[in-house]
Amino acid sequence: MSLSVKHLLGIRDLQRQDIELIFQTADSFKEVLQRPIKKVPTLRDTTIVNVFFENSTRTRISFELAEKRLGADVVNFSASGSSVSKGETLIDTVNNILSMKVDMVVMRHSATGAPHFLSKHIDVPIVNAGDGINEHPTQALLDSFSIREKLGKVEGKKIAICGDIMHSRVALSNIYCLRKQGAEVTVVGPPTLIPKYLEKALDVNVTYNMREALEWCDVANVLRIQLERQNTPLFSSLREYSLAYGVNKKLLDSLNKEIVVMHPGPINRGVELSSDAADSKQSIILHQVENGVAIRMAVLYLLAGKSPNITLSSGN
Amino acid sequence: MSLSVKHLLGIRDLQRQDIELIFQTADSFKEVLQRPIKKVPTLRDTTIVNVFFENSTRTRISFELAEKRLGADVVNFSASGSSVSKGETLIDTVNNILSMKVDMVVMRHSATGAPHFLSKHIDVPIVNAGDGINEHPTQALLDSFSIREKLGKVEGKKIAICGDIMHSRVALSNIYCLRKQGAEVTVVGPPTLIPKYLEKALDVNVTYNMREALEWCDVANVLRIQLERQNTPLFSSLREYSLAYGVNKKLLDSLNKEIVVMHPGPINRGVELSSDAADSKQSIILHQVENGVAIRMAVLYLLAGKSPNITLSSGN
Amino acid sequence: MSLSVKHLLGIRDLQRQDIELIFQTADSFKEVLQRPIKKVPTLRDTTIVNVFFENSTRTRISFELAEKRLGADVVNFSASGSSVSKGETLIDTVNNILSMKVDMVVMRHSATGAPHFLSKHIDVPIVNAGDGINEHPTQALLDSFSIREKLGKVEGKKIAICGDIMHSRVALSNIYCLRKQGAEVTVVGPPTLIPKYLEKALDVNVTYNMREALEWCDVANVLRIQLERQNTPLFSSLREYSLAYGVNKKLLDSLNKEIVVMHPGPINRGVELSSDAADSKQSIILHQVENGVAIRMAVLYLLAGKSPNITLSSGN
Repeated sequence: MSLSVKHLLGIRDLQRQDIELIFQTADSFKEVLQRPIKKVPTLRDTTIVNVFFENSTRTRISFELAEKRLGADVVNFSASGSSVSKGETLIDTVNNILSMKVDMVVMRHSATGAPHFLSKHIDVPIVNAGDGINEHPTQALLDSFSIREKLGKVEGKKIAICGDIMHSRVALSNIYCLRKQGAEVTVVGPPTLIPKYLEKALDVNVTYNMREALEWCDVANVLRIQLERQNTPLFSSLREYSLAYGVNKKLLDSLNKEIVVMHPGPINRGVELSSDAADSKQSIILHQVENGVAIRMAVLYLLAGKSPNITLSSGN
Repeated sequence: MSLSVKHLLGIRDLQRQDIELIFQTADSFKEVLQRPIKKVPTLRDTTIVNVFFENSTRTRISFELAEKRLGADVVNFSASGSSVSKGETLIDTVNNILSMKVDMVVMRHSATGAPHFLSKHIDVPIVNAGDGINEHPTQALLDSFSIREKLGKVEGKKIAICGDIMHSRVALSNIYCLRKQGAEVTVVGPPTLIPKYLEKALDVNVTYNMREALEWCDVANVLRIQLERQNTPLFSSLREYSLAYGVNKKLLDSLNKEIVVMHPGPINRGVELSSDAADSKQSIILHQVENGVAIRMAVLYLLAGKSPNITLSSGN
Repeated sequence: MSLSVKHLLGIRDLQRQDIELIFQTADSFKEVLQRPIKKVPTLRDTTIVNVFFENSTRTRISFELAEKRLGADVVNFSASGSSVSKGETLIDTVNNILSMKVDMVVMRHSATGAPHFLSKHIDVPIVNAGDGINEHPTQALLDSFSIREKLGKVEGKKIAICGDIMHSRVALSNIYCLRKQGAEVTVVGPPTLIPKYLEKALDVNVTYNMREALEWCDVANVLRIQLERQNTPLFSSLREYSLAYGVNKKLLDSLNKEIVVMHPGPINRGVELSSDAADSKQSIILHQVENGVAIRMAVLYLLAGKSPNITLSSGN
């Protein structure tokens, strides 16, 4: 059994069975991560380059940890300090890196479609770590994996994705991932950030009423407000946003049931999510982070063409 | 035998026997560093993250070398290019890193108490690599270790710490470290940079007269003037500072004995220390740097819960 | 057999037999890089520090890959985020790094002669990865190695080096390297960028006529116009430059023979080289990049004092 794709460019291209295979592989890696010795050097002769044209803390470190626990050699490339500032084209930069015979590329880029463009030109597996406002597939996989871990399965569950849907690659990848697994999805946020046509285009429910969405759902995946991408004056709108769409403990307690709270991070505490909600026992935010490493190990492992039967012995 | 502390947050928390244990362990590692093969992969299944919220050359590289020579997997995190610039809180950043199951954290932060705050929330050992104007414990340990190496012991020796005492974490950690070992300490510098109350608070001698301090001491630990932290107009005061408190070969030669010259680096040559003094045979500055790696190997090794009896065999 | 030099500071210091030895060693490593498993951990107990005082993508990554494939431990140091911005001198920075007992230094610096200065003070091998407008020896070696691979040998071949000769360390290292191997060299570019006295000083032909140079040569090594180093108003001169000295497919097709096209990268597409020329089958630009890793492995391997008979078995 192997993945139906050669690259992980987006969830849109995956089959449901691909998602299942990744989850089963991640199950094994998650077991490894509970051990005192967390390395499974199955990619010990593999060199992976992390090409980040956008800054990132957690995603880059999560990939780097996944790579190192698989025993890979890791080379980090970030846009600052690179030839990109000397006016080199994207394809030249990556061709050069590839001519150096790396075995796999993890790439984040601000341009939608950048990794797809590259996949047409190069032979080695590419993992999209976020491209513009398009997809962030490993985030969606770890989100679904965390729901499956918490609720037993994803199929049939009701997931509310809350916030700026229009500009969020996390939202889009989550919608594809959840729908492919048979979950129901409602997107909720201000009308300016969530176009009505999504309903038909993506087979999701759309509402602008936060309470309505929370009363309906099993899981609320609260997205980060991208402060740094907003062009409008911030303070008044942030405060208004928080009042209308912020999730806090009081609001959660007022529902007639307990829902699971998720967030892809980094949290704007007090804006889209209050500290008492983020740190409550309903929150699985830190489990998402933990699962991120296992999911990324699984993706890298499978794209490297390894058998899904992991040899669980560790050591060098 | 093991350390009485779980973290290395500051020298203030250490027992004298902790300091001795670290030195004995560093002795073994220092032997290893003289060999052609300098690796002792005792932490080969350990992942250490270096979280530097302030820039640093030597401290970060010294820790990274110590970690790699112990065989650890190393992930570097620096504030620029991180979620910190997206407004994430410190605790969120570190919680996220920890959810990724790292085994140890080395942290530098501009805020006093940052590593102490974290140690209340997380389980894995934390090493303070400098917090604000509070402590820089591995620097003090390597300083004392270098004095011990040069003079046979620290107890009973007379150490002058020279310069900006008020804003220096190196000074404070050194004062704790030296006093706990039974050394006598005099702090010397301009009255504006060395409050009189330190005398009682920290059991040290205070003087504003450089010659007096140098005539008294066995060792002069000359601190760096933090040019980048000064708010006052610089040139005139720097020149005045150098005339009143700068150490040069002529001054050293005019003493009626030979004293040991130390500096934590990086040196402002010609300001607090002249080149002829820094590069003289009285200077042990480069030994301090060399010892830094051995001390940091010892600290990481002991905090990882390893037996103080190092297996000195190397190889992978 | 071993190199006649202890450091690789420039091609100027090499004997022809040194160049041959590097090429033969690189041949072996190039074979290794064609295998699925590309590691030859012969430097597994070696720590190499990459000290880059100037930004670089490809050179830094190429060295880092070479080092990791040899099994070395790698520590990266870049000027931003370093003590250099605190006013530390070059010699202090490097002395400090060396006191930490690293085994080899790869250094790029904007000042001509920086690695030569260091080599007078320190014991471990230094590899110059580019110093000011002086030399970039590994680039010249990989360029000649690529010509030898494509044309069978370098001796007797006619090489045109095209562009800004005056400010180019790539040009100077190439001239030395090619002449030592018995190739004929013509430098071609605008009179303002290529002083007439070079002819006598360096035993090369000088012309300001691009077509003349191309009709003469077997290989055109087209240099990058250093946009970031030009002080003159750019747009008009760039366009003029491109018309007079730019290489494109139409120009290549108009010659009465096929020549090999090289470029050290990163390419300013449409300025010194058009895309249809850069991506044509006459171009060996990506082979240059690939060969760069093999050449750097060879240089590091030989400077580490290893026998030129590489044990080609891989694995950890």
